[in-house]
Amino acid sequence: MDIREALYTTRAMRRVKPDPIPEDVIARILDAAIRAPSGGNAQNWRFLVVDDAAVKGRLGEVYRGCMEVLWSTIYKDKIAAAEATSDDPESIQWMKVKRSADWLAENFETVPLFFFGFAQGDPTGGSIFPAIWNAMLAARAEGVGASLTSAFMLKLDEALAILEVPPDEGWIFGACVSMGYPTGRWGVAPRRSATEVSYRNTWGSDVGIRIDGPLWKG
Amino acid sequence: MDIREALYTTRAMRRVKPDPIPEDVIARILDAAIRAPSGGNAQNWRFLVVDDAAVKGRLGEVYRGCMEVLWSTIYKDKIAAAEATSDDPESIQWMKVKRSADWLAENFETVPLFFFGFAQGDPTGGSIFPAIWNAMLAARAEGVGASLTSAFMLKLDEALAILEVPPDEGWIFGACVSMGYPTGRWGVAPRRSATEVSYRNTWGSDVGIRIDGPLWKG
Repeated sequence: MDIREALYTTRAMRRVKPDPIPEDVIARILDAAIRAPSGGNAQNWRFLVVDDAAVKGRLGEVYRGCMEVLWSTIYKDKIAAAEATSDDPESIQWMKVKRSADWLAENFETVPLFFFGFAQGDPTGGSIFPAIWNAMLAARAEGVGASLTSAFMLKLDEALAILEVPPDEGWIFGACVSMGYPTGRWGVAPRRSATEVSYRNTWGSDVGIRIDGPLWKG
Repeated sequence: MDIREALYTTRAMRRVKPDPIPEDVIARILDAAIRAPSGGNAQNWRFLVVDDAAVKGRLGEVYRGCMEVLWSTIYKDKIAAAEATSDDPESIQWMKVKRSADWLAENFETVPLFFFGFAQGDPTGGSIFPAIWNAMLAARAEGVGASLTSAFMLKLDEALAILEVPPDEGWIFGACVSMGYPTGRWGVAPRRSATEVSYRNTWGSDVGIRIDGPLWKG
């Protein structure tokens, strides 16, 4: 697969089939993760793949609790606004994302694999997220759908206890990535134009390039 | 370019030529950045590309100050250890990285482009680093070398003032990425095996897959 196709079509794929991911595919995903850079090339990272039904069951309970917190706090106003303007294209799109996230919470245990990334001494996330994103891009190349969630942050102690992460070694939770073969189709996700969110030399200055993306269209 | 080649060979490329990066290449890099996922698809990000000589000059001064702090604090013991075991392959490799980082500090102003990523409401870095890493992978596909540095964190107020980032809007600095056409060659950077840093189901448990990487060899 061409790099551009992977960059443009690796969208959040939460609805996946229960079919297991073969071991050689998992190997290629993990081997792609460690190719990412890390501060001082320290590689102070650990990757945890979860496919055991009992562990997924315990995580699923916590995950549903996290999502309840998320919807009733951080996204409370956003949901109310989207419901109040339900004909608005942006609201429609956002409620689609929410339903997809709800699907993942309700069907957590049926997802074949969860991938977790942890790092030590990584205050910005800059040493773990390129690795996590590499894993997701490598999964895309294998036809494996993935979606990144930070929701476990809301009940982190419970999640880390289930995964038996040592509490005294300074491991920072990066993210949880659900992985499986998608039920839906790949495609380019909607985004605001790069021109709108890019500046040149100083904050707020026109970037000086008109970017009518997506510049890759398949 | 195949996705695997990009994932395996996008290594830190600090030594670059002063040749400018064409505008259409910058456009494709920015358009790739915004294809990344972000929490709730909020896209609360901004990308700042810096190629103005005066701005680079001011940033370069601050950057050299940051690197002095970095070497004399966080990496002080590591440098001493590497110098004490200078025949050790790991020490040799680490001092190579340090010399490359020193090159970037000394030649900051000759690098044609710096790319900065910022996000709002992103405590883990999970909403900005996939975008930053997308930009670096897209750069790789264009033959543009890139290296990610968080060093500005050490004198963040000074750097943000130069870039005129509004201090009261909650913008979190993600990273600075240097970009230019490399003087050296692309290749797969050395890494510890994925088997060593991966677990299955719970922390410390054997991942159950022997991964004798790199699984992509070109």
